[in-house]
Amino acid sequence: MRAVTFHAPGEVRVEDRPEPELLAGDDAVVRVLATGICGSDLHIYHGRVAIEPGFTIGHEFVGTVVAAGPDVTRVTVGDRVLGCFHTACGICFHCLRGEYHRCVESRTFGHGATLGSLQGTQADMALVPRANMVLRRVPEAMSNETALFAGDVMGTGLHAVVASGARAGDVVAVLGLGPVGLSAVQVAHASGATVLAVDSVAERLEVARAFGATPVHLDEQDVRAEARALTGGRGVDVCIDAVGHPAALDTAVRITRACGTVQCIGVYTERLEVHMGLLWLKSITLRGGQANVIAHVDRVLSMFEAGTLDPARLVTHRMALDEAPEAYAIYDRREALKIVLEP
Amino acid sequence: MRAVTFHAPGEVRVEDRPEPELLAGDDAVVRVLATGICGSDLHIYHGRVAIEPGFTIGHEFVGTVVAAGPDVTRVTVGDRVLGCFHTACGICFHCLRGEYHRCVESRTFGHGATLGSLQGTQADMALVPRANMVLRRVPEAMSNETALFAGDVMGTGLHAVVASGARAGDVVAVLGLGPVGLSAVQVAHASGATVLAVDSVAERLEVARAFGATPVHLDEQDVRAEARALTGGRGVDVCIDAVGHPAALDTAVRITRACGTVQCIGVYTERLEVHMGLLWLKSITLRGGQANVIAHVDRVLSMFEAGTLDPARLVTHRMALDEAPEAYAIYDRREALKIVLEP
Amino acid sequence: MRAVTFHAPGEVRVEDRPEPELLAGDDAVVRVLATGICGSDLHIYHGRVAIEPGFTIGHEFVGTVVAAGPDVTRVTVGDRVLGCFHTACGICFHCLRGEYHRCVESRTFGHGATLGSLQGTQADMALVPRANMVLRRVPEAMSNETALFAGDVMGTGLHAVVASGARAGDVVAVLGLGPVGLSAVQVAHASGATVLAVDSVAERLEVARAFGATPVHLDEQDVRAEARALTGGRGVDVCIDAVGHPAALDTAVRITRACGTVQCIGVYTERLEVHMGLLWLKSITLRGGQANVIAHVDRVLSMFEAGTLDPARLVTHRMALDEAPEAYAIYDRREALKIVLEP
Amino acid sequence: MRAVTFHAPGEVRVEDRPEPELLAGDDAVVRVLATGICGSDLHIYHGRVAIEPGFTIGHEFVGTVVAAGPDVTRVTVGDRVLGCFHTACGICFHCLRGEYHRCVESRTFGHGATLGSLQGTQADMALVPRANMVLRRVPEAMSNETALFAGDVMGTGLHAVVASGARAGDVVAVLGLGPVGLSAVQVAHASGATVLAVDSVAERLEVARAFGATPVHLDEQDVRAEARALTGGRGVDVCIDAVGHPAALDTAVRITRACGTVQCIGVYTERLEVHMGLLWLKSITLRGGQANVIAHVDRVLSMFEAGTLDPARLVTHRMALDEAPEAYAIYDRREALKIVLEP
Repeated sequence: MRAVTFHAPGEVRVEDRPEPELLAGDDAVVRVLATGICGSDLHIYHGRVAIEPGFTIGHEFVGTVVAAGPDVTRVTVGDRVLGCFHTACGICFHCLRGEYHRCVESRTFGHGATLGSLQGTQADMALVPRANMVLRRVPEAMSNETALFAGDVMGTGLHAVVASGARAGDVVAVLGLGPVGLSAVQVAHASGATVLAVDSVAERLEVARAFGATPVHLDEQDVRAEARALTGGRGVDVCIDAVGHPAALDTAVRITRACGTVQCIGVYTERLEVHMGLLWLKSITLRGGQANVIAHVDRVLSMFEAGTLDPARLVTHRMALDEAPEAYAIYDRREALKIVLEP
Repeated sequence: MRAVTFHAPGEVRVEDRPEPELLAGDDAVVRVLATGICGSDLHIYHGRVAIEPGFTIGHEFVGTVVAAGPDVTRVTVGDRVLGCFHTACGICFHCLRGEYHRCVESRTFGHGATLGSLQGTQADMALVPRANMVLRRVPEAMSNETALFAGDVMGTGLHAVVASGARAGDVVAVLGLGPVGLSAVQVAHASGATVLAVDSVAERLEVARAFGATPVHLDEQDVRAEARALTGGRGVDVCIDAVGHPAALDTAVRITRACGTVQCIGVYTERLEVHMGLLWLKSITLRGGQANVIAHVDRVLSMFEAGTLDPARLVTHRMALDEAPEAYAIYDRREALKIVLEP
Repeated sequence: MRAVTFHAPGEVRVEDRPEPELLAGDDAVVRVLATGICGSDLHIYHGRVAIEPGFTIGHEFVGTVVAAGPDVTRVTVGDRVLGCFHTACGICFHCLRGEYHRCVESRTFGHGATLGSLQGTQADMALVPRANMVLRRVPEAMSNETALFAGDVMGTGLHAVVASGARAGDVVAVLGLGPVGLSAVQVAHASGATVLAVDSVAERLEVARAFGATPVHLDEQDVRAEARALTGGRGVDVCIDAVGHPAALDTAVRITRACGTVQCIGVYTERLEVHMGLLWLKSITLRGGQANVIAHVDRVLSMFEAGTLDPARLVTHRMALDEAPEAYAIYDRREALKIVLEP
Repeated sequence: MRAVTFHAPGEVRVEDRPEPELLAGDDAVVRVLATGICGSDLHIYHGRVAIEPGFTIGHEFVGTVVAAGPDVTRVTVGDRVLGCFHTACGICFHCLRGEYHRCVESRTFGHGATLGSLQGTQADMALVPRANMVLRRVPEAMSNETALFAGDVMGTGLHAVVASGARAGDVVAVLGLGPVGLSAVQVAHASGATVLAVDSVAERLEVARAFGATPVHLDEQDVRAEARALTGGRGVDVCIDAVGHPAALDTAVRITRACGTVQCIGVYTERLEVHMGLLWLKSITLRGGQANVIAHVDRVLSMFEAGTLDPARLVTHRMALDEAPEAYAIYDRREALKIVLEP
């Protein structure tokens, strides 16, 4: 079968790989119908996240179950399913508390040995361990493209809003309008919040406006003044940092009101200077981390079905699996929001 | 000044009363611009809630501050304001916990000696104790009619949804589509829930549909079947009982899923048979009580300003204060949703 | 092997039964070292909970793993383990939310066909499905007797206190001082609450006093007056009803403060008259249901190890498995708190 | 009257000042019976917190009400009372949410113009604005010394534990065993947590042990190894940083488990390097800020009365008000935990 593999920074290939086989009783094998390219794939593409050359990448997928071990009860062969981007055991300390994203045996698709040596989903077929946790049936009327968002991008947007404690009537700022930031915008708006969406790319600001937010251009407007204007000078109740850069974190701490929350879904990997003085003075809660999509995926699907959420607008490119090298190049040039690859 | 007074079941009059005067440092006097007739006024009208003959009734109001004691800091003379339906001291055990609706010194407008001997607001003017807690400035662009809903009806709808713990993506059933039930429908929808709205009056079901809910006709459809159909057979996550009748409570317990919540904003005043067996078997949380509008009024105003909530559709009648006797008769015949009286 | 079986109200026998065998990959077989008789066994003994004659009863157990399927990872053959009283699948709607007690595939040990046809643990050996969810290793220094409480009685006590939302500094009343009620007393006290323990049996009141509570004799003292005296007249923050009788529920609603919580762990199975008027007037939260011990068992074990909780005082009888008929008779006469049977 | 005033770093004096007089309807004047020296007084003493020379310092106090404005209802002249360290208006955005520590009109005793120009309590008498919010009656059997802790030190300890979300059965580490850290130790232990108490001063570690904690010597033991040993390698559920130094924050982030909470009550005033990468990877919640003692003071008093908390052991010195200069010098040399000054 074909698989998109990483070889060196800036170099991905479509190569031939053996088809996966069931290894455990709760494994499934899925024939991929659609798989996305995500911001974290770009980290691999840039060499910032190191994986073994030749490893298959990708972690977003919708497909058809073609084989399932005897312990797989949630789905059956022939089902159209979507997958979450990582596995969870269901029985460890964290899983028993519903903290599936911190499962001690968690493996992430397409991230090499450091995250569990689980081959990626940008391929004709994918092996899915812990299929009862990872897979969900796609409702009949839902497109592959829409379902693709439940197990990663929109699940992350929902996680950010839920984890932040944002409530109907709150003012929520979202910094960074990539697909995840825009998903957070849509979820916050659907949850009854007034949303301030901040970026410097006009097209992304337009999508945010279409999702119900007030767009704020980072370079042309004064973010702090806008936040104050919307909140009687207090600052926003919640700021979702979907950037993962010290400048974004700094803005977040500044525009958030006393006793508010800064929720970081943008990735931080290093030490950095934080304005702890301001954070302390304002009694702000700062929380970060990967999204707990297994806890949220069913809710995302319900909201897709109800029409409360709709990611269609985020898909800017549909390409063939064979075009993966070009797709990565486009994504790297920031010319796309979500690229869907169809094997 | 003119005031609407209760005299006997079915008999209210418009009478002359002395204008109110400031009695305490945190009192205000408000010239009433709009005042509503509410379901709880009907309890008085029917004689089920006993008050002294000649007492001024009404507890929903928007008006202009014409006098304010030296300790009133939130508003000033000349401000257009709305009022919450009861007072709170701000310092007792309950107020310190934000449970303003259980303030030990709480007084409710227009409910006679049993609720604090505070004359009602269906009058040309009203005395407002604890003005810092009770009053809020009306945003300039907001109509009197819209603001009128913040301190009672929509505040109660928001309270019900917040107290129930309903979240975006949940399925929420609302039983009873009077103004409060319809407000709960609108809040639940605005909060990202899928809403099932149950009543037997076609017009009310239509308003619910316009508010984004799936209407269910109590007599023509099978409520339990509809609840199951929307939830994969599980039952709704939250059921808001806006009726206050044993049959409604029974339906609520039946259609709510295991570990779900039944939130009663419909008034219960007596002992009644409850299916504790079912409630226990399903680990349901049952919660009731008056709404904590002082805790929610600012959020309602924010949502009115953002356009997330809009009660305009609930106003079916606008009448003069002098027409109060006729207005009560119309409301008693269930021909109206909200009647606004304008002095 | 020997097994305690139910035959008719008041009649249990020790009979010979085939040893259990592994049926699924995540099954284990446990050789029982200690098993308890519980209040819910008494419901079976009285015929109020109907099960098939000849069915093995009992659901509390500590033992040694003698066989384990290939998917059992939490424990291994030879481990000394304790069991929770029911199974959970780990992947259904409820399990994913941590509501393990409402698992759609849950099976309870020793309760016949209505609760999943899972043979009981009052036997030489027990088959344990979903062993990864049900079993926990017993810490080396912990006695069988102590561990026995984690998977049922003390887990239920902890559940009651946690579910009630009781916090350090609250006043918590516990009605009914059987083993579960006394466990709730101990947990509430260990959690920093002031505890009022209500019963009419002097010995049980003494144990409650030893557990740090203020005992209140139901017949000789005025429970409402005691509750008021401890709370400045307000009523208790939380009332845990460990009785499951209309009179207890009525007392609970009366002695609980406005905005407080009534948590029912005593079992209700039928319709009954509830003072909804009072519950509504006081904005009380009423919650009931079986305990979610799988969510709490690890925490109970930690607190046993830390010495924060200690159930030793609850064990009043140790008897041989062969003495089960006599043990049930003793328990039925209310002469025991916890009887431990040792095969 | 006499008052302890700040003049220059290291220089406080006892000077004569005019007696305070009532200025507003909800003011009270209190004759001080006991007043404490606190760690934040030391910041002033060191000149790190700048206040006007000659300003009266101190913010912990117990005394007798000698005058009260007409709006003071919570206490009356002659009452023995304790005070919280700051005022709150009760009606602003934050107060209505129970966030009294972020009241927009909050004034802190003894901190000069930057915190509201409210003269301190290390004096014969003190003016108390917002007396209904600030003051509480001292229960008759409670000593001045014990009551003194409710409005500042122990209130801060309780705030830290409550804000952290620590629950019975959790493992809580407390870094820094000054009076506030030791109070947090006592509260956490009283709340059912297993407590790891970290410092480098043997006497303080001994007090922590007496309060039920496992002491860990910062220089002689490996804090991370101890935290791992107590938690099966996971790290503590909650770490309370009562130090306010980058090294403490770093330790906190390292020893806290995935999805755990770091609660900072130690003061941060500047930018500093934080290991955001680790915080993000572990999905840790970081929260800081001044304590909300007005929200917690009644609970502290209840726990003092119940004997669940007892600060007596924290008082190491009792001195006369006239000895204030010497008392500050002793405190500055870290020879004391709590010094109580008695006018």
